[in-house]
Amino acid sequence: MSHLFTIGPVEMYPETLEIGGKQVPYFRNDEFSNVVFSVNEGLKRLLFNEDGEIVLLTSSGTGAMEATIMNCFTKEDNLIVIDGGSFGHRFTQICDVHEIPYEAVNVAFGETLTREMIEEKLGNDKFTGLLVNLDETSNGQLYDIKMLSDVCKENDLIFVVDAISAFLADEVNMDKYAIDAVILSSQKALSLAPGLSIVALSERMLKRVEVIDSKSIYFDFKDHLKNAERGQTPFTPAVRIIIELEDMVKRLEEKGVDNIIKETNEIATYFRKRVKEIGLDYPSYPLSNAVTPIIFPDNNADVVYKELIKDYGFVVNPSGGDFAKSMFRVSHVGNQSIECCEALIRAISETLKKLE
Amino acid sequence: MSHLFTIGPVEMYPETLEIGGKQVPYFRNDEFSNVVFSVNEGLKRLLFNEDGEIVLLTSSGTGAMEATIMNCFTKEDNLIVIDGGSFGHRFTQICDVHEIPYEAVNVAFGETLTREMIEEKLGNDKFTGLLVNLDETSNGQLYDIKMLSDVCKENDLIFVVDAISAFLADEVNMDKYAIDAVILSSQKALSLAPGLSIVALSERMLKRVEVIDSKSIYFDFKDHLKNAERGQTPFTPAVRIIIELEDMVKRLEEKGVDNIIKETNEIATYFRKRVKEIGLDYPSYPLSNAVTPIIFPDNNADVVYKELIKDYGFVVNPSGGDFAKSMFRVSHVGNQSIECCEALIRAISETLKKLE
Repeated sequence: MSHLFTIGPVEMYPETLEIGGKQVPYFRNDEFSNVVFSVNEGLKRLLFNEDGEIVLLTSSGTGAMEATIMNCFTKEDNLIVIDGGSFGHRFTQICDVHEIPYEAVNVAFGETLTREMIEEKLGNDKFTGLLVNLDETSNGQLYDIKMLSDVCKENDLIFVVDAISAFLADEVNMDKYAIDAVILSSQKALSLAPGLSIVALSERMLKRVEVIDSKSIYFDFKDHLKNAERGQTPFTPAVRIIIELEDMVKRLEEKGVDNIIKETNEIATYFRKRVKEIGLDYPSYPLSNAVTPIIFPDNNADVVYKELIKDYGFVVNPSGGDFAKSMFRVSHVGNQSIECCEALIRAISETLKKLE
Repeated sequence: MSHLFTIGPVEMYPETLEIGGKQVPYFRNDEFSNVVFSVNEGLKRLLFNEDGEIVLLTSSGTGAMEATIMNCFTKEDNLIVIDGGSFGHRFTQICDVHEIPYEAVNVAFGETLTREMIEEKLGNDKFTGLLVNLDETSNGQLYDIKMLSDVCKENDLIFVVDAISAFLADEVNMDKYAIDAVILSSQKALSLAPGLSIVALSERMLKRVEVIDSKSIYFDFKDHLKNAERGQTPFTPAVRIIIELEDMVKRLEEKGVDNIIKETNEIATYFRKRVKEIGLDYPSYPLSNAVTPIIFPDNNADVVYKELIKDYGFVVNPSGGDFAKSMFRVSHVGNQSIECCEALIRAISETLKKLE
């Protein structure tokens, strides 16, 4: 027996595995174009981006982050980047490589991002855009999307949201929050295999993309958007994941995005209550519903991680670098339930007793 | 019933589909590192590149072509590009975008690439490298690898071979032909789902990569090579396809690369003989064992294509643009056999009679 509590890949659904086991069909035909049309229309509705467009990229989320920067910004821009962990920091590295001017708002571990921290930077210069990983997956902090949206509206900033781990766990409404680009990846709450990323572009952003020279063949959004008009991609895509995505999008739409977020919130809330009850803790900054970082006062998170796999087949998400011993992370996205949570809590509790 | 005679995705093997139907595991651990080590070592043996290294990219083959140009060449280079179809032409487009100087050797449809055509260009300038799609998949021409290798050796050219459709169908021996980079993709003869590409780099090319600034985060070979030392990739890879690849590489090694090429050649030879016997034809230039383009004298390839799907469930590979009516292509890679070939020949023959 095995159950994934990792943040990506996540525990997948039987419906997806059934598709995964089938012959991958030929794709340069109307049948596959209809799959792409269905996926793109469904994603637009789930993201509240009905006037925008969808780009399907065969790459990891980082590929999609880089593609977004390359297609949506130039050296004439000046960006605010929320750098509160390894994924926020990745945005700064991408800007460095592509020589896009930016100012990083650093959020130290444990600190909560505030409007003042951003305004301090805004006073210094003229800015054109803001990049954020809405849920900084490395530590689970969920930034305040309303505050970020207000800052962008008031300062006329192009608003780019990496919602790779926030989507379906927390509210990501492009229309309501005037988001210009949302970046998603297949292996998070969409619960598919890794290898496909998605960029949703607003109507405003599409106008920007039109006039920017992306300096890439593979990641050229203009070429992707032109091909999407006929339900295709410029190059052979991750066909199997796109077919899984069509099935998943249909099921998500049947359930409703609000209900999915509510259910994820219920699981996360239950789990966090139980974490405290067994004598452990989690950070006090605002957390995404997608993930709970558990803090181990005895600095034995790495030992517990291994025991959970060995004794229970439960795979939680280890933390890297400085946090390897003090913290591991538990996903609430994918095929999860209160029952799974409870089984994990008991397993952690028993393991800690065993290690005493 | 359905059988794919397309060039990618190809008809897959039951062993691969079994893996495809399983939960994708977490990958930042020793278990997955061992999978990557096993894949990379096996690929090095299959490509005769034991002193080189392997880069696994989550992208289509075009992504890998672009990544190779970005990591292996600079504006100081000057390349010869064999441009004999849409894939050769893609190399010129990539060079244009990245401002890599080049001279294209154009091979018109029906014409055979000769040494003289390359030497004509070589006389004009100083060159540093040569790019070729060994099997120009759009029309099936197999270029003479020994001739190309000799030209590169004699003129001290870095030799880059896109073997996306030639690998396992025709000889691709990096050691014997002094190839510096080979580009592969998961959905051709490796018979896996699309979404993973592979670049094998020679020892000489590794030294080049070390000193070139790739101007990319996602496609940075230096970062990939550093991560490969611990059996990992910099970003979440197409985990499921890499696991399928481990299984496939093991089975290919058991069978032996020479035997696989021989078997593919037998299928292609049988099929071509039968094509002539039913009154059809194929091009007279040298053909890869991977694919046979069939020429339809009555310009009804598109009609036959549709009838084959409707009546038999056989999906052949349509040709694009100018060739849509005069030609379609039949793959001999993937899960193919003489029996499948014969069934397809009979189906084509019956369809043509029906259409008379």
